[in-house]
Amino acid sequence: MLDDWREHERPPRLERRYTFAGYPELREFLDRAAEISEAMDLYPDLSFGREYVNVTIHGYEEGLTEACRELADKLDALRQSLAKE
Amino acid sequence: MLDDWREHERPPRLERRYTFAGYPELREFLDRAAEISEAMDLYPDLSFGREYVNVTIHGYEEGLTEACRELADKLDALRQSLAKE
Repeated sequence: MLDDWREHERPPRLERRYTFAGYPELREFLDRAAEISEAMDLYPDLSFGREYVNVTIHGYEEGLTEACRELADKLDALRQSLAKE
Repeated sequence: MLDDWREHERPPRLERRYTFAGYPELREFLDRAAEISEAMDLYPDLSFGREYVNVTIHGYEEGLTEACRELADKLDALRQSLAKE
């Protein structure tokens, strides 16, 4: 499921960029991503402008854990669910 | 009002970092900042993690306009209003 994520070693992290057709869709993504973060207690770095969101999921000391990869999967599923609406 | 903003020339932009005591307060800031962006049709680049938001307001071709500085002021006012709650 992580095909479009780039995995880096130093520091350990997963990175992916999502693009959006419009700002309302992007805001919806950010809102729901925040809910996922709170539920998992796992907070990626996000940067965004009008039509893009870049996500960096840091592994910190332990490196990339199962939870990191689960978060990546959940963000992909979220992005996909918004695309369908 | 722009004391805590850094102004850069190439490319023309204003930059500022805000920190937050918690994620709910940060989310509130992002939500209201998005409303301000939509109202002004002016979209800064934002990056955030669990406790910080970095804002970059780009001037693009025209350089930094009055609208750019007005957006900076509005974000400062927003940050201050959240701190008081």
